[in-house]
Amino acid sequence: MDVLVPFAAGEPKTRLANVLEPNERAEFARAMLRDVCTAIDEAKASPTVLSTAHIDSEWPVIVDDQPLTIAVNDRLDPPIAVVMADLALATPDALSRLFESEGLVVIAPGLGGGTNALVVRHPDFYTDYHGASVTDHRRIASEIGAETETVDSFRLAVDIDEPDDLAELLLHGTGEASEWLRSAGFELSVTDGRVTVQRRTR
Amino acid sequence: MDVLVPFAAGEPKTRLANVLEPNERAEFARAMLRDVCTAIDEAKASPTVLSTAHIDSEWPVIVDDQPLTIAVNDRLDPPIAVVMADLALATPDALSRLFESEGLVVIAPGLGGGTNALVVRHPDFYTDYHGASVTDHRRIASEIGAETETVDSFRLAVDIDEPDDLAELLLHGTGEASEWLRSAGFELSVTDGRVTVQRRTR
Repeated sequence: MDVLVPFAAGEPKTRLANVLEPNERAEFARAMLRDVCTAIDEAKASPTVLSTAHIDSEWPVIVDDQPLTIAVNDRLDPPIAVVMADLALATPDALSRLFESEGLVVIAPGLGGGTNALVVRHPDFYTDYHGASVTDHRRIASEIGAETETVDSFRLAVDIDEPDDLAELLLHGTGEASEWLRSAGFELSVTDGRVTVQRRTR
Repeated sequence: MDVLVPFAAGEPKTRLANVLEPNERAEFARAMLRDVCTAIDEAKASPTVLSTAHIDSEWPVIVDDQPLTIAVNDRLDPPIAVVMADLALATPDALSRLFESEGLVVIAPGLGGGTNALVVRHPDFYTDYHGASVTDHRRIASEIGAETETVDSFRLAVDIDEPDDLAELLLHGTGEASEWLRSAGFELSVTDGRVTVQRRTR
């Protein structure tokens, strides 16, 4: 299975700006990208990074600075998968469940209505990543008569966007990105029964 | 499989106080409880509600007003499962994956480090629901020499605690609780690409 991995190379992870400096956000985003590509590789699929600018990578890179939806749709040649670059909890097992699901359109929903990962086997399907894309993708699939399968995965549902998501990475991550986060001084913090993160002063 | 479903009957869902009145929170919590018990039933397991006070229910109810961890541990007679009453996205499929996983301790992690559902087949295991319980439960299992299995499920990971969680229920719910929420005037709201909920004025 060919897998597109869209990656915003310019100014990644702006919603982490309160807790990480720009150069740290860039490093952390690259670490997550490598974790995702490694997991795809271990699930016996072939990642291609679809990046908004040139980056060094051990996997093939296509550079396209168009908006996400357009850049993906221009290359949506079935059978193909699209897996977001910030799914730092993704494991080969979770991705295999995605790739092996048999629907013409297979969706792994993200928290907050996103579409974190997708398999497309119908030639008329197209993506629309704006807003509650999981609803839009179900509608588009229905309009072209392609039944939608849904993959029920916590590891594919959590994208690392905001400070609270870092807690999930510290709790469940096993790759380079969680390692990076620990080296940067982040640790779990339990307050009032809620789990968040705090950063040690160095 | 016998399944305990702990339920806080007194003042449920206090973190929804900003968006729901006390009597609404009680109604909504009961609707979620019925959805969870129905899904357990359809997964061919037997729910018993472990409630802090008497409630009317079509399933068996045990009343115990001790703190959650103690009340559960007093009845943790393996093989047994514990499934939280606010997992309103739980489906029979997701619960079957949990019940059929073969570990001596099987954990379905919740967002934020909780343990949303659990299967216990080892007599020495005990729960500790305070804080990042998923980490504590893995440690306890390890201390008694019971290997832990983890169930990777979005539907079991989302507990409905806070206003943002309501968006997940509107996006993915199919039971009585999502119906209740829609009747109460809640609908999805997409702002800046983020999906939240808003309530219509009536």
